[in-house]
Amino acid sequence: MEHFLEKAKSASRVLATLSGSERNRILREMAEALRANTMNIIEANAIDMKKADVDNLSSSLKDRLMLDEKRINAMAVAIEEIAALKDPIGKVIEGWITETGLKIEKVSIPIGMIGIIYESRPNVTSDTAALCFKSSNGCVLKGGKEAEESNKIIADVLQQVLIRNDLPKELIALLPDSSREGVAKLIKMDRYVDLIVPRGGEALIRFVSQNASVPVVKHDKGQCHLYIDRDANIEDALKIAVNAKVQRPSACNSIETLLVDESIASAVLPMFKAVFDRENTQLKGCALTREIIEVSEASDEDFDTEYLANILNIRVVDGVDGAISHIVRFGSGHSESIITENITTAERFMESIDAAAVYVNASTRFTDGGEFGFGAEVGISTNKLHARGPMGVEGLTTYKYKVYGKGQIR
Amino acid sequence: MEHFLEKAKSASRVLATLSGSERNRILREMAEALRANTMNIIEANAIDMKKADVDNLSSSLKDRLMLDEKRINAMAVAIEEIAALKDPIGKVIEGWITETGLKIEKVSIPIGMIGIIYESRPNVTSDTAALCFKSSNGCVLKGGKEAEESNKIIADVLQQVLIRNDLPKELIALLPDSSREGVAKLIKMDRYVDLIVPRGGEALIRFVSQNASVPVVKHDKGQCHLYIDRDANIEDALKIAVNAKVQRPSACNSIETLLVDESIASAVLPMFKAVFDRENTQLKGCALTREIIEVSEASDEDFDTEYLANILNIRVVDGVDGAISHIVRFGSGHSESIITENITTAERFMESIDAAAVYVNASTRFTDGGEFGFGAEVGISTNKLHARGPMGVEGLTTYKYKVYGKGQIR
Repeated sequence: MEHFLEKAKSASRVLATLSGSERNRILREMAEALRANTMNIIEANAIDMKKADVDNLSSSLKDRLMLDEKRINAMAVAIEEIAALKDPIGKVIEGWITETGLKIEKVSIPIGMIGIIYESRPNVTSDTAALCFKSSNGCVLKGGKEAEESNKIIADVLQQVLIRNDLPKELIALLPDSSREGVAKLIKMDRYVDLIVPRGGEALIRFVSQNASVPVVKHDKGQCHLYIDRDANIEDALKIAVNAKVQRPSACNSIETLLVDESIASAVLPMFKAVFDRENTQLKGCALTREIIEVSEASDEDFDTEYLANILNIRVVDGVDGAISHIVRFGSGHSESIITENITTAERFMESIDAAAVYVNASTRFTDGGEFGFGAEVGISTNKLHARGPMGVEGLTTYKYKVYGKGQIR
Repeated sequence: MEHFLEKAKSASRVLATLSGSERNRILREMAEALRANTMNIIEANAIDMKKADVDNLSSSLKDRLMLDEKRINAMAVAIEEIAALKDPIGKVIEGWITETGLKIEKVSIPIGMIGIIYESRPNVTSDTAALCFKSSNGCVLKGGKEAEESNKIIADVLQQVLIRNDLPKELIALLPDSSREGVAKLIKMDRYVDLIVPRGGEALIRFVSQNASVPVVKHDKGQCHLYIDRDANIEDALKIAVNAKVQRPSACNSIETLLVDESIASAVLPMFKAVFDRENTQLKGCALTREIIEVSEASDEDFDTEYLANILNIRVVDGVDGAISHIVRFGSGHSESIITENITTAERFMESIDAAAVYVNASTRFTDGGEFGFGAEVGISTNKLHARGPMGVEGLTTYKYKVYGKGQIR
């Protein structure tokens, strides 16, 4: 594997010689190549689908795995959208002249070689390959075992385009050893790999963060909260609570717990119960909640669980400070929201909460690269450093200082 | 240790309630407290110095360890300078309004809890504590065994100021278990520690990067180069070469290897030999170099060595591309410089080289927080991510997105 990664790393240097418009032209060629290979991709995917039947995968997993003409076209469109994004490379982030007359420019550059570890959906292969190529990074991809044939042919189609353009095919590579040992090796290869992005289950992310010597940008769990303050507009509060829980419970930016200000609890909890009952949401509550509405009991373990399902905890808290204490204890630093018309309360909440995104009077569901206006997204980072929250193509860049002198010495 | 770190972590949250001007006032109090405790600090330092004699430490190590009135006053002045820096917290880095009308602000915030591992000089204790406090971060400090008593009293003086201001003393803490096992534990405590900054020898940095689950900002070696192009102004080239090597050979931003364009080698190498002989620099050269001037032989191992001493390798290369190849192979991504009057050659060099700082017509010695205009520096990061190159107090911040809605749902 070391030899393979060394080759991939040196291939990634070739990208520095390509202009943004050349990269975009090649991306559009990749999109076309995917369309032209629709039948071959569907055939390879059929092998994975047959294996999924044999292995008795769940129907939702099989749905995520399945490719048809429409989905392959969507993959091509996604690449074309990435090609249309502004070039993230070469941006002068800051610039100034020092006391000694040096002109300094802080300029965005590629990170180098990026390892991406993901599961199930084969479109992630083309999406992430395109995002890395757009940002002049080489990539090593490690998809799920269940999508092996689909991933192989998608990577192969993209590599053919690289070869036609006299570029090393290692710029978009699949990890040759996709076993757990292969992954364990990859994440220790800090000589060749500059960043690892694990997207997947908690076990994978824990394994990677605990064992990697390569820097990691995690896409970890979202234990998100919505706090209804005494000064909330209740109409907004009801609408936002339902949206944040029900619109897509499997998303990491949906809420798991509703926090309600004690001073309005008895007035508003029956209203929340009514709207959530209409959505068939399973409600659990703290002792105070259960004095007001009839719901099952929520334990500390419940408050710590990312349901990814239409289940919601409710807890009555002692004002904004009670809400902050609960979130400090149980929050995962993803997305937290307060509903209030009071500007002082809103700012107290937003200043005190340490999360990638803190909201006032909006649904946590907006924590998303597309909604933030970043275009395609690599994912939603739960790191505190490098990239935090929605991670667009800019998250795949770093910077260097270009220093222009006229013979200065120190 | 877990209990101790948990306490320190929750202490660090208190900092969010302090305004910038309160933090600055407390920093100025700390500076005064150091001055007021000059005699006590000198007494504690004497114990370390006596131990240094017994342990037969080198005179240069002893010089770094020694504290007197002047040095303690310099530590106080450094804190006052940090107090005078612009507040790095609460800066709106970007702001925009989304399609759905959400107002988003990307705002700088503290990282949280920072662990700093360093050696010898006790002033690092007060410097880094002040930088962390300025940026609203808690810190756990692990200094060198040889400075134990000095570090203890400095931390104690700073903690007394915290207590006088009703702040938890754990905001500035010394690691209770300062053994290697203590460090090994600390760097795995990602629940409580958000960033580790190791400053010290290669062995320490390797150990920390290989074993930490907490993100690390390394301050690693500088294998820096100066390339003299065929279109160089030779007067500048000579002056800059001497400065970059000789002014402070022990600094990471000084050069180890001089690369000279083949087409001017026979004309200029004797001039370089003459100026370096005047500086008593020990020169080593490649085969081509040794055909022109009389120097000892430079091996590949030499090209890979950070001398930190007045020793310089010289290599004749085939133009700017030869220089780039050499730097790709041997450079450590710290600081690289080209001397040329040709704008195309300069840009080719600066685009191709992946280093924290790339220079044209200036000495690599300028890679420094102070010279860059950042004020006090945490160090010079050799990371590619988060903070790269000179790391000022801004390097101790991260960000969150504050999102202002008017009832938006998705």
